[in-house]
Amino acid sequence: MFVEVKHDSWKEINQYYLKPIKMKVIYTKEQANEHVNIVLKNALFCRIGMANKNVPYVVTVNFGYDERYIYFHGSQKGKKVDMITANPDVCFEIDYGAEILSSVKSCNWGTKFRSIIGYGKVELLSNDKDKEKALLAIMQKYSGKKEHAFDEHVMAHTNIYRIMRNNIEARNNHWKWDE
Amino acid sequence: MFVEVKHDSWKEINQYYLKPIKMKVIYTKEQANEHVNIVLKNALFCRIGMANKNVPYVVTVNFGYDERYIYFHGSQKGKKVDMITANPDVCFEIDYGAEILSSVKSCNWGTKFRSIIGYGKVELLSNDKDKEKALLAIMQKYSGKKEHAFDEHVMAHTNIYRIMRNNIEARNNHWKWDE
Repeated sequence: MFVEVKHDSWKEINQYYLKPIKMKVIYTKEQANEHVNIVLKNALFCRIGMANKNVPYVVTVNFGYDERYIYFHGSQKGKKVDMITANPDVCFEIDYGAEILSSVKSCNWGTKFRSIIGYGKVELLSNDKDKEKALLAIMQKYSGKKEHAFDEHVMAHTNIYRIMRNNIEARNNHWKWDE
Repeated sequence: MFVEVKHDSWKEINQYYLKPIKMKVIYTKEQANEHVNIVLKNALFCRIGMANKNVPYVVTVNFGYDERYIYFHGSQKGKKVDMITANPDVCFEIDYGAEILSSVKSCNWGTKFRSIIGYGKVELLSNDKDKEKALLAIMQKYSGKKEHAFDEHVMAHTNIYRIMRNNIEARNNHWKWDE
């Protein structure tokens, strides 16, 4: 099973287009939506793929999200900053619940996973309101708590980014819907 | 702690150059070597970052390795094949043992991880001997067993790739060496 979930714009975020890629589509629109939310809720990390002069770079980041954006942060110096500054177009990959499936036959081994792969332009946030909203989304994901206080000095010296959630593919290998 | 481990060529694979990036270097050459091996041995998945016309793409793959190469495989159709064919220069990221570290202060939360980030040109393997060697390395990693038989038909219809292990950075955040 392999389905692509795509919404053309923020306004149509609940209007998924399902496109079969490998096998028949078994997701309803609601299931595709739920798949994305299950992965965003349960996965601890997000991989950000970047490219500069056609040379790729991948890093693992902590992340947060709301209905509109994926958020992540990082230091103000380093390769990630250089790459994003040179080219803000990124790919993000988030997976959850991956397990190796063994078999008597070597060729029948497989991997069970749920993942999402998205594409978008990274925005470096500049105003304090947006930055705090992003940090709250990140902290809420990991702590489960909605209220957090942030050190102004740390906020001023942290790069905080967001990517619009408007181009996401959902991938499911061997996950049963009701488990 | 953040160290870069680089070997210039296959012949110098045990001659690591350590370069401090964020904090003081605390790895010896032997520890850096061991770091890479711990991650390769214990991590279940590898993320491959690709780029075509400066647009990045990231996928998670199962992998195998020997002293010289990282191996992975995939189907003969799809975005991964298209991307690698267009541009074989990839970045691979493998992490192991990541945990969220909580704190009373929101700004003091962190992530503990060991990872490696490498760069190289993907080679699509064409002869059966190389393909079988690669599949054995992948199967050995997941099964722990050295001997496996592969279905010829499946092998003929699987793309099997390798990347030389000659440009790898080791990253360590909050891992103590002796744990």
